Amino acid sequence: MGEYSEEAGRLGELAKELQESASSFISKSTAEEQSLHQRALSINSNIQNLRSSIPQGQKVPLPSLSFCMPACQITILFSFIILPKLDEQLFRAKCILNDGDAASFLPNKSHGRFLKMFLGPINVRATRKDVQLKVKEEYNNYRDRTAFLFLLLPSTLLLLKSWVWKGCLPALPVQMYQAWLLFLYTSLALRENILRVNGSDIRSWWIYHHYCAMVMALVSLTWEIKGQPDCSHMQSPVQLFLLWAVMQGVAMLLQNRYQRQRLYTRIALGKAKRMDVVWGETAGVEGQLWILCPILFILQGFEAYIGLLLLKTALVGVVSEWQVVVCGILLVVMAVGNFANTVQTLMSKSRIKAKMKTKSKLELDQGSLHKNS
Amino acid sequence: MGEYSEEAGRLGELAKELQESASSFISKSTAEEQSLHQRALSINSNIQNLRSSIPQGQKVPLPSLSFCMPACQITILFSFIILPKLDEQLFRAKCILNDGDAASFLPNKSHGRFLKMFLGPINVRATRKDVQLKVKEEYNNYRDRTAFLFLLLPSTLLLLKSWVWKGCLPALPVQMYQAWLLFLYTSLALRENILRVNGSDIRSWWIYHHYCAMVMALVSLTWEIKGQPDCSHMQSPVQLFLLWAVMQGVAMLLQNRYQRQRLYTRIALGKAKRMDVVWGETAGVEGQLWILCPILFILQGFEAYIGLLLLKTALVGVVSEWQVVVCGILLVVMAVGNFANTVQTLMSKSRIKAKMKTKSKLELDQGSLHKNS
Repeated sequence: MGEYSEEAGRLGELAKELQESASSFISKSTAEEQSLHQRALSINSNIQNLRSSIPQGQKVPLPSLSFCMPACQITILFSFIILPKLDEQLFRAKCILNDGDAASFLPNKSHGRFLKMFLGPINVRATRKDVQLKVKEEYNNYRDRTAFLFLLLPSTLLLLKSWVWKGCLPALPVQMYQAWLLFLYTSLALRENILRVNGSDIRSWWIYHHYCAMVMALVSLTWEIKGQPDCSHMQSPVQLFLLWAVMQGVAMLLQNRYQRQRLYTRIALGKAKRMDVVWGETAGVEGQLWILCPILFILQGFEAYIGLLLLKTALVGVVSEWQVVVCGILLVVMAVGNFANTVQTLMSKSRIKAKMKTKSKLELDQGSLHKNS
Repeated sequence: MGEYSEEAGRLGELAKELQESASSFISKSTAEEQSLHQRALSINSNIQNLRSSIPQGQKVPLPSLSFCMPACQITILFSFIILPKLDEQLFRAKCILNDGDAASFLPNKSHGRFLKMFLGPINVRATRKDVQLKVKEEYNNYRDRTAFLFLLLPSTLLLLKSWVWKGCLPALPVQMYQAWLLFLYTSLALRENILRVNGSDIRSWWIYHHYCAMVMALVSLTWEIKGQPDCSHMQSPVQLFLLWAVMQGVAMLLQNRYQRQRLYTRIALGKAKRMDVVWGETAGVEGQLWILCPILFILQGFEAYIGLLLLKTALVGVVSEWQVVVCGILLVVMAVGNFANTVQTLMSKSRIKAKMKTKSKLELDQGSLHKNS
């Protein structure tokens, strides 16, 4: 037993030592983090101050914390030609600050009311860039997995309705599906808020869109699913809702494909040369965008149409529950918002393309000048 | 303009330097964390190995990661008297490992399916002990704030029903209240899972209880609230549900008061002597527990009674929707689970008390022996 006791004593000593190293590590790194945080803050505010003392008219907007990496680099690319010298310097300093590891020490992006409501004040920001990219990758996997269900579940309900249930949906399967929708949209909204805290450049609209969809799923749960008599009339709102869901599933699958290719390009470019980002990103995906967009526009038109149909059934008085009116309004709002945001995305992409053309032209001109001289 | 440009250049340099310090800090501290993690793992497994080679019959269960601080200290207190020497040494080593800053470097407690479903694979564990205590404090604040609403909302609905709505609840306010309940239970379940990841010793049952309540709120949303004719009969399940909610509000207020006092004692004891934990904790709260428990038992009986009433209304056939049956079953399950867990808590508290008495007696005996000798 003596050797056991000796070993136990040794382990106790080791545990004590570990405890001491752990607490000294935690206090040391907390202090170091604090000092990095202070330095980042002071450089950031000095840049702002200097900019505000520059005369107006020579300024371009500085990139914000959420500004995505490639955009930062695009602008550096063009800054040589388009921007005045001073602005270019400031812009580069700001890009260095926002773009790399230093960004972790800028003040945290606000977690937002939605996350605080559900999770309380816990920190969900990852410090390391590779962890952040992993979170995004997992989010995309989640979207992929659910997009199939998103298409499958309402299609199954509609098919069963015509083949098995003789044109009349029973309440329970529909309500279970609606509960699943509510869960799905809640988890998407939570995950997107977390992505945003981790520096993703996700557009606010897509998060608001999921808030709208959450409300719609909730409202649809309280929506009484009437059976006989006159089932086809009474259930027309539910059927429209399911049709919208099928359509939304198609849109999700298409968007996921596109988003995933963009992310892969970006991750790969972490290893490639930095300036390659822009070309690589646009080159691989540009073609797909022009197939994706018309389909998205058609789906958005269909979404608005279903919203208006719901409003019509409510106003004509076939089914006059408030739930139908609310869902109709939400669908129209979502369709309009989706349309506006798709157009904005396209416009910003074509602006970048136009700038690139200018640059290539300038380079060509300079090239021919050199040859001529 | 020259000085501006100089300043901009200087800021650019500073940003670059910061970027370099930031990435060296991140890589250095990642490596150091990794090594602490390895050391913690190896000590932990050595303790397990040594223990498994000790002959049976002399063992006490070692504290687990989630073992709360005071419990660890209670056992150290008694280990001198009750445990054999070797076990005591191992127990102490394990306590040091689980109790202090070193605990942050033991393998993460699994985040659990629930958190992963809603949030994805994001880390919600805080490294520093003070941050962890803050999370708990905020959770208690949240419970306090919501407990009042929990009591207020259903009471208001019931009062308005008799005074304004002439005995017949309109659907919309009740459904809005049910949606709020669903949100509340979801956020409580999320926050409790986060607390658990951060080392809180919250009993699993209380989290399961909130899962049950989530399901009940969801089911109650799909529950059609019928109006005229024969309102009082048709609405009896809804009324029973609201009564349960009022009662649950009272239970929450009482439990919050008790939990809060326990936490304050623990935080204060971080500054006080370590061995004071046990006495301080029991002394302040013991009395309250014997007032709290009978009230809790009465409320639990009432909960089961309402569940059975719901089942009766469904079986007798007044309102024969499946929602009523499911809610009835859930209420009975929650009542039984709550009762069993309250009894278990009481029993473990009285075991600790009994051990303390033994110790005081032994000390007294030793004291008189010393006097006599």
